[in-house]
Amino acid sequence: MKLNLCIFAAILTLFCPVQAFCSDALTSDDTKDCLGCHEYSHPGIVESWRNSNHSQTSVKDALGVNAMSRKVSAETVPDALGSKSVGCAECHTLNPESHADTFEHNGYDVHVVVTPSDCATCHPVEADEFSQNLMAHSRDNLAGNAVYRQLQVSILGTPIYQESQKLFSQSASNENTQAEACYYCHGTRLEVTGFEARDTITGKLTFPTIQGWPNQGVGRHNPDGSKGACSACHTRHGFSIETARKPYTCGECHTGPDVPAYKVYTTSKHGNIYSSKGDEWDFEAVPWTVGKDFSSPTCAACHVSLLTNTEGEVVAKRTHRMNDRLSWRLFGVPYAHPHPVSQDLTSILNKDGLQLAVSFDGTEASDFLINPATQSRRKETIQAVCLTCHSTSWVDGQWQRFENTIQTTNAATRSATKLMTEIWNTGLATGLDQGGNPFDEAVEKKWSGIWLFYANTIRFSSAMGGGGDYSVFADGAYHLSESLQEMQDWHDLRSKNQGLE
Amino acid sequence: MKLNLCIFAAILTLFCPVQAFCSDALTSDDTKDCLGCHEYSHPGIVESWRNSNHSQTSVKDALGVNAMSRKVSAETVPDALGSKSVGCAECHTLNPESHADTFEHNGYDVHVVVTPSDCATCHPVEADEFSQNLMAHSRDNLAGNAVYRQLQVSILGTPIYQESQKLFSQSASNENTQAEACYYCHGTRLEVTGFEARDTITGKLTFPTIQGWPNQGVGRHNPDGSKGACSACHTRHGFSIETARKPYTCGECHTGPDVPAYKVYTTSKHGNIYSSKGDEWDFEAVPWTVGKDFSSPTCAACHVSLLTNTEGEVVAKRTHRMNDRLSWRLFGVPYAHPHPVSQDLTSILNKDGLQLAVSFDGTEASDFLINPATQSRRKETIQAVCLTCHSTSWVDGQWQRFENTIQTTNAATRSATKLMTEIWNTGLATGLDQGGNPFDEAVEKKWSGIWLFYANTIRFSSAMGGGGDYSVFADGAYHLSESLQEMQDWHDLRSKNQGLE
Amino acid sequence: MKLNLCIFAAILTLFCPVQAFCSDALTSDDTKDCLGCHEYSHPGIVESWRNSNHSQTSVKDALGVNAMSRKVSAETVPDALGSKSVGCAECHTLNPESHADTFEHNGYDVHVVVTPSDCATCHPVEADEFSQNLMAHSRDNLAGNAVYRQLQVSILGTPIYQESQKLFSQSASNENTQAEACYYCHGTRLEVTGFEARDTITGKLTFPTIQGWPNQGVGRHNPDGSKGACSACHTRHGFSIETARKPYTCGECHTGPDVPAYKVYTTSKHGNIYSSKGDEWDFEAVPWTVGKDFSSPTCAACHVSLLTNTEGEVVAKRTHRMNDRLSWRLFGVPYAHPHPVSQDLTSILNKDGLQLAVSFDGTEASDFLINPATQSRRKETIQAVCLTCHSTSWVDGQWQRFENTIQTTNAATRSATKLMTEIWNTGLATGLDQGGNPFDEAVEKKWSGIWLFYANTIRFSSAMGGGGDYSVFADGAYHLSESLQEMQDWHDLRSKNQGLE
Repeated sequence: MKLNLCIFAAILTLFCPVQAFCSDALTSDDTKDCLGCHEYSHPGIVESWRNSNHSQTSVKDALGVNAMSRKVSAETVPDALGSKSVGCAECHTLNPESHADTFEHNGYDVHVVVTPSDCATCHPVEADEFSQNLMAHSRDNLAGNAVYRQLQVSILGTPIYQESQKLFSQSASNENTQAEACYYCHGTRLEVTGFEARDTITGKLTFPTIQGWPNQGVGRHNPDGSKGACSACHTRHGFSIETARKPYTCGECHTGPDVPAYKVYTTSKHGNIYSSKGDEWDFEAVPWTVGKDFSSPTCAACHVSLLTNTEGEVVAKRTHRMNDRLSWRLFGVPYAHPHPVSQDLTSILNKDGLQLAVSFDGTEASDFLINPATQSRRKETIQAVCLTCHSTSWVDGQWQRFENTIQTTNAATRSATKLMTEIWNTGLATGLDQGGNPFDEAVEKKWSGIWLFYANTIRFSSAMGGGGDYSVFADGAYHLSESLQEMQDWHDLRSKNQGLE
Repeated sequence: MKLNLCIFAAILTLFCPVQAFCSDALTSDDTKDCLGCHEYSHPGIVESWRNSNHSQTSVKDALGVNAMSRKVSAETVPDALGSKSVGCAECHTLNPESHADTFEHNGYDVHVVVTPSDCATCHPVEADEFSQNLMAHSRDNLAGNAVYRQLQVSILGTPIYQESQKLFSQSASNENTQAEACYYCHGTRLEVTGFEARDTITGKLTFPTIQGWPNQGVGRHNPDGSKGACSACHTRHGFSIETARKPYTCGECHTGPDVPAYKVYTTSKHGNIYSSKGDEWDFEAVPWTVGKDFSSPTCAACHVSLLTNTEGEVVAKRTHRMNDRLSWRLFGVPYAHPHPVSQDLTSILNKDGLQLAVSFDGTEASDFLINPATQSRRKETIQAVCLTCHSTSWVDGQWQRFENTIQTTNAATRSATKLMTEIWNTGLATGLDQGGNPFDEAVEKKWSGIWLFYANTIRFSSAMGGGGDYSVFADGAYHLSESLQEMQDWHDLRSKNQGLE
Repeated sequence: MKLNLCIFAAILTLFCPVQAFCSDALTSDDTKDCLGCHEYSHPGIVESWRNSNHSQTSVKDALGVNAMSRKVSAETVPDALGSKSVGCAECHTLNPESHADTFEHNGYDVHVVVTPSDCATCHPVEADEFSQNLMAHSRDNLAGNAVYRQLQVSILGTPIYQESQKLFSQSASNENTQAEACYYCHGTRLEVTGFEARDTITGKLTFPTIQGWPNQGVGRHNPDGSKGACSACHTRHGFSIETARKPYTCGECHTGPDVPAYKVYTTSKHGNIYSSKGDEWDFEAVPWTVGKDFSSPTCAACHVSLLTNTEGEVVAKRTHRMNDRLSWRLFGVPYAHPHPVSQDLTSILNKDGLQLAVSFDGTEASDFLINPATQSRRKETIQAVCLTCHSTSWVDGQWQRFENTIQTTNAATRSATKLMTEIWNTGLATGLDQGGNPFDEAVEKKWSGIWLFYANTIRFSSAMGGGGDYSVFADGAYHLSESLQEMQDWHDLRSKNQGLE
């Protein structure tokens, strides 16, 4: 059958070479100049682009689409963009003056790094929403938080062994190590440090040297001063809405065990339906109609996409400020809590003077967190998605359990932290109050595993309607209880030993 | 090509709107009444149903299918069901008098929870077989077993820290926590606790309040007194045989590390072939013909489905009593053993008076386990599937290794349990004989990890013809040996310390 | 739409039954003899073969394909193979005299195990290249290495508990255990130990008894004296190039945490694109054209396949000597190092007299490792693939970080090994110099986890352009640092205790 269909398609293609024809006529002369070399030197990305909406639609046509199906949010765009499609030149020569990475390239002022500010030319609402998102600030929120920096050193720090003392110490990791670890997802700081000439197939050319490059982290600092990277989710150079809507995109950073959304999804009922039947769904449709286009949510369906019911009524407005549909912050360091008001987490100061939304003893820094009314509104926003397939009693039951999970995992963390504090106070380990790093000793790592891995995993599993063994045996309750028991065991042995001395 | 085919398909559809036409004529008036509102309020599930066999086939036609291809096992059904398809009303208004969750709903006696007893109207053989399955009793077998309950408390129990004693204790977890953890798969107990009125799009309506809802666990207690949930595997509301046959369905509960069937499968040769070529297979065909419809088994092929060879001869009869093809129970608490005779595991009593099929010292409670002749018969039943692709010497060689794996992992568990018993006997930890919970101390969790995670993972990997690193480096022999060495290390240090006191 | 296309395809098939017709005419009489029984007794593999290139192409036609698209590398083949396709008899009766597993079977001299020497009849270049590969020697390199054997005993050894001494010891595991564990991937040793008669559907027949069977490990010892198994990657009996090119094939053995290539890939940007869009790609095309046939690499694209750009120019030559594109050996026992010169790793001898490429103190056995010039050449070979989608500055930046990762993870391993050596020297554990197994005590397993799991995982994640949380939270830097801190904690407590005695 495959063969027959291929022959048939080949014949039809002879008479309707629509795609090839259109995309060529739509390509700007500048982009054709780019393609002259890059089609040869970078065939992979050029072909991805050729198959993309960017290549096959003129900006004018994209602007002319009616409201609900419209993918661009700009009212108007610069005249130069109108009748042509969006190709190499359209993005890489935008706003040249604001880009420190702009360089002269065969007569064009080209920049390497396309940023949310560039994308905002056609997609201003999305760029603006994204900037109000925790993600766009994920680099700053990590690098600018004194507690998180200590956690980072305790994990990434180069271990130096002092033979005389028979002791490790960890020194700050180098920039390359950081870029391959935390900042791979959180985003590096891109800085143009100079320009260098290089031999190419078209002779000697000069290119900028960019420290921190390559990187596609969501909170990246860009050479034009903007923050973030649309390409983290809208994968270059196809920028396919299908890819962004599939769970693998989110799985690049949300795998676990700290934020195991992807792993939980793969073994959830929702993920099962997606994996079994997703190949029959329409991942390109805008708006995205529940039931007609897909029958089980992906990450995007619950958190981002414009959804409608089969009558065409809006179920959920598109948002790139994912906070709109998030009432709780599940990711606990060390506690889960109502979502923060501001996307700038470094401005939070709890009663202990730490930049954490909740104190070690469990007291919330309430001034910095959304209030119950806002929590409730956001809950209703995301539950509208659930209700397209589930009854009210189902959805209420699930939410009640989910909030119970937040309470009980926070309670477990509080118990563990009390014991940890006892250990610090009796001098068996060196915590913050003793001037130490609270994460860099063996027993402290037992403690941090409790909230960073196991409590988080249990919460994600509960939030997402269950996911295989993830709430119990795979980084869940089994390991949480084991770590508590090991902390106790560790404490009791040392206490006894202290008594013996 | 995609575009061309779409245009072509669209044109054909104009002249052959078969599906839309048929399914509408087949829909009963009662179901049309349901759809009047629910098509609007729950488009996701309605569309899933519209695409289903239930929606597109009349019961009469389903009954008329010839023996081998027949999907319903009933000889006759109530007259009312005959000429129409199976829609909302057909299931949700069946047997109203037996359902405690029945409520008056716009003139209909509707119940929320469709149960195996409802499904048995058309699928009696499957419902009956399933009831003889360990799975249908998985709630009772967990909740009714005193040893398992201790394991459960040691994992899920809320940890309370007693500051004065610097000691944790674990109290019983609440019902919501249990429903999100063990009983998510094992099944909750659904109990109608009252009725409440709610505002809806069609005015104020009354609905039952059901404790334990939502849940789709395989051993659920239902409001009509039945046990189990067909929807655990036959996902609502498409009830797609394709979904049930794909490995993601089993992966919802069998992920690991306690029962890592899904993870082992994904990295096995069988899983590789499925992932690489499965999109070309026919997952709807009944019977399911080896080679023609698929060329590598999924979970269902080995354990459930009706398989034939290309001559149409039966390779394996369909069974929803998975025991038919299971000679060993691999899941060991703490030992793997011949499959139990009865699906009610709470009736087992071993020589130590525990509800476990094998004593801690390794002695089998043989009276409660199938005999070698039955084991042999079941082995032959499942090997018939293997033999459609593998030679006798291949299959015999695999089985010999598999049974060796059972022996050696049980031997390792026996060694670990001897040391654990030594630790209990010398008072370094508090076991059953000392009146304690044998699972709630750090060294006890090392011991339980050995059989619950690592021995089980090694056995599943061996049973399923290997699976990546799962038998060695990913929750396998490396971790089993490490845990043993850690138990030894723990014991030796405490023994020495005891001597010092 | 599905239905309509099916009808359409069915009609066309009536007039063009090309496949069925051709494959029958191409089948040799000998193979038809085989099919006479095996079509019935083994429908799964027969149908896989019917859908394969082997079944649908005559050897003569395969030889006639022009250079770049040619899949067979032989110049000529035995006359008998020419005009027919490659079926059962063509492979299983080749070179009968060299096969110890040859047996008389209904008038034919058949052998059970088809080996690389058999495949070399048509694919000599691939068989030869593969023999120069580490993989073809993976059994010898494990079984013939004294240090690795100690690691193996410490993992697979049957634990025996000596009650009098309250002590475990591990004795060598049996052959079946080894075949299900390490040698499942590394390859067993196949040895014909006799012949036995068995009743079959065609009467009593005699078959060889082969110790070590079944097995498809890449370094298998075969009954004809050859090493390796093409079927490890070219899955029987479809031998589909599509399957070999998809990541699941490599995932059978490279899952982790020791060599987590598959898990890293699934959550990398490359894996995301593959999972999201791969169903639109052409996995059968030879050569494999970047951009046109696929837009993100799979394992095979980077390491094996013949790649061309859209102009038809070679980007990377096909190689089954994967070393050609590997400059570093990331898998560290205990250190990563430049790739070894010879595929026979047992011939390596470092300054400590161990068969390891790097001494425990970090000194490379440089004579046995490729020099910088060779490393550089191999780097350029694989980077040619990267450059089809990425700019030079991107690729250089990635490589710089990757080599930094090798340095820092090796440094962490060196620090850990210094502490381990201190522990051995002070008698807290028994290492090589003390006549012990350096891997079989609890603290030694902490140490081996550092390099075998965590350093390796961090390196694979860095090499493959990042992969979810794998470099930090999932078997990465978090666990590496935790293990170091636990080693320190273990050491300090025992040191103190020693002082107390």
